[in-house]
Amino acid sequence: MVLNRRNFLKTGLSGAAVASIGGAALMGCAPGSKKEAEGKAGGCCQAGEGGCQHSAAALNISFQEGTAPGENLNEKFDYMEKLGVVGFEPGGRGLAGRVDEIKQALDGRTIKVSAICAGFDGFILSTDEAVRKRCMDSMKEIIAAAGELGSVGVIIVPAFNGQKPALPHTQETRDFLCEQFTEMGNFAAEHGTTVIFEPLNRGEAFYLRQVADAASICRDINNPGVRCMGDFWHMTAEETCDMGAFLSAGEYLQHVHVASRRRRSMPGEDGEADCYVAGFKGLKMLGYNKYVSFECGCQGDRNVVLPAAVELLRKQWEKA
Amino acid sequence: MVLNRRNFLKTGLSGAAVASIGGAALMGCAPGSKKEAEGKAGGCCQAGEGGCQHSAAALNISFQEGTAPGENLNEKFDYMEKLGVVGFEPGGRGLAGRVDEIKQALDGRTIKVSAICAGFDGFILSTDEAVRKRCMDSMKEIIAAAGELGSVGVIIVPAFNGQKPALPHTQETRDFLCEQFTEMGNFAAEHGTTVIFEPLNRGEAFYLRQVADAASICRDINNPGVRCMGDFWHMTAEETCDMGAFLSAGEYLQHVHVASRRRRSMPGEDGEADCYVAGFKGLKMLGYNKYVSFECGCQGDRNVVLPAAVELLRKQWEKA
Repeated sequence: MVLNRRNFLKTGLSGAAVASIGGAALMGCAPGSKKEAEGKAGGCCQAGEGGCQHSAAALNISFQEGTAPGENLNEKFDYMEKLGVVGFEPGGRGLAGRVDEIKQALDGRTIKVSAICAGFDGFILSTDEAVRKRCMDSMKEIIAAAGELGSVGVIIVPAFNGQKPALPHTQETRDFLCEQFTEMGNFAAEHGTTVIFEPLNRGEAFYLRQVADAASICRDINNPGVRCMGDFWHMTAEETCDMGAFLSAGEYLQHVHVASRRRRSMPGEDGEADCYVAGFKGLKMLGYNKYVSFECGCQGDRNVVLPAAVELLRKQWEKA
Repeated sequence: MVLNRRNFLKTGLSGAAVASIGGAALMGCAPGSKKEAEGKAGGCCQAGEGGCQHSAAALNISFQEGTAPGENLNEKFDYMEKLGVVGFEPGGRGLAGRVDEIKQALDGRTIKVSAICAGFDGFILSTDEAVRKRCMDSMKEIIAAAGELGSVGVIIVPAFNGQKPALPHTQETRDFLCEQFTEMGNFAAEHGTTVIFEPLNRGEAFYLRQVADAASICRDINNPGVRCMGDFWHMTAEETCDMGAFLSAGEYLQHVHVASRRRRSMPGEDGEADCYVAGFKGLKMLGYNKYVSFECGCQGDRNVVLPAAVELLRKQWEKA
């Protein structure tokens, strides 16, 4: 049996003699190997020893494919560059066949591929092995393409509410999930990318709703190819504290989605509700410099509300 | 149907027209009515508008009944007062019959009752209505006594791993839990106290493992009699970030347990592992001034390790 944190917890918490597995790994903030090596047992870098950040936080805005106006990628990218948007998040379906197209459209631009949004078949927590296999196989295809594109990772949801029959919500299922994602994570790491757990609100996915939960799973798996994200829309329903959620993600935080907070539209379209400052403060504390990516609809005139949304995020980032 | 946050989420997230239920309640940091009134949509008091704390944070140390040496309550309380310990956390079993005893022993002292540790029968997530009723009835008895004693609340776990058969881990069960705790919370509030969800590590209770999850449940229930807590021992296994966990608890944080982080013994007995600074930093950000209570065993000579533990916590609180 591979001795990893997960196995350790299973044996350790039953009252048996506790083996030393690397102190800092067990407590405090999400440890990276750096913290472990420094023995920062229990201490958040940002909390214990004076706010150490591994990198300077930066707001790197990304759009999904439907966000910007334009008839094709080049038109969209022209628009995005004018707004200073630096990330592009395509869907994963059929990605392998689009690698050249995307590379060509990005050539010479300041925009890079950020995350890949799902697109896999089946789901990993199906009771049906064939359905799980479809998920694993389709994910690997997308992951390989993501690696070619230099993407930060492929977003995945373990089980949507409508996907049944699913394995029951138990420790055994969680352990199984960890095994499956170890395999996926190894593959992703080999391809220079990651897979990214996305917690969703209960209306879409009961199985995984909170960033802290996703982070805990990442820590148990302890694989450089397995990460997590937070989506402000889902966090609106499921998190009591955006800052707490992102801090819990810690070094596992690989991506962020943003939308307005009542109608999942352009940031700002829901007025006073669209405050991301607490979350941004958490991102700054982490030194987060990956992407904040628009996954949202649009109520008003896109050519008006989209620049306004970008401006709002920048203002709130400064304020945070 | 009572329109509360939980019902709102059920209807709102299905895509139906979203009613305005009080903006700040839906996002950002755990809102109290104060924040809601101020319309701090999405913003942590501590994050958005310049670190507003509702009270000055203070480290109020509490002991359970087995913590201090002594043959009876008075001897223990003498010892505790010498150490500057200000809280006492009795178990809930038989509490009703001990109210006078405890009041007498506390009379004229600086020590108050902090939380009440469980002691209920049955469990609230049993499939068996009779078992749930035993839980509700026994809890109410303890809650009434807790109120008489001026306690901050009665700690409860929805289901331990060994308690079977239990309701499955689904949205329906969560909704049911919220209903049961609305009833318990109303009763607690009438008695001037609360019930306090305690998340445990997976070895003890898979159902509720993270503080952010407990806080989310509290927010859905939205009842002044329902709160949550964090236990550093359980958090060691289940939280990636102590600060993130406590921030997520926000205004719902009613109690904290502490122990050493490898062997659940006296703080300090596990050496470098026993760092609570990140968590304490979170508590300070919240202005937390309730109790940090010892729930732990002891490896060494109690008369040596206990004062050392109290000293360690005070040092780390200063450092945080």
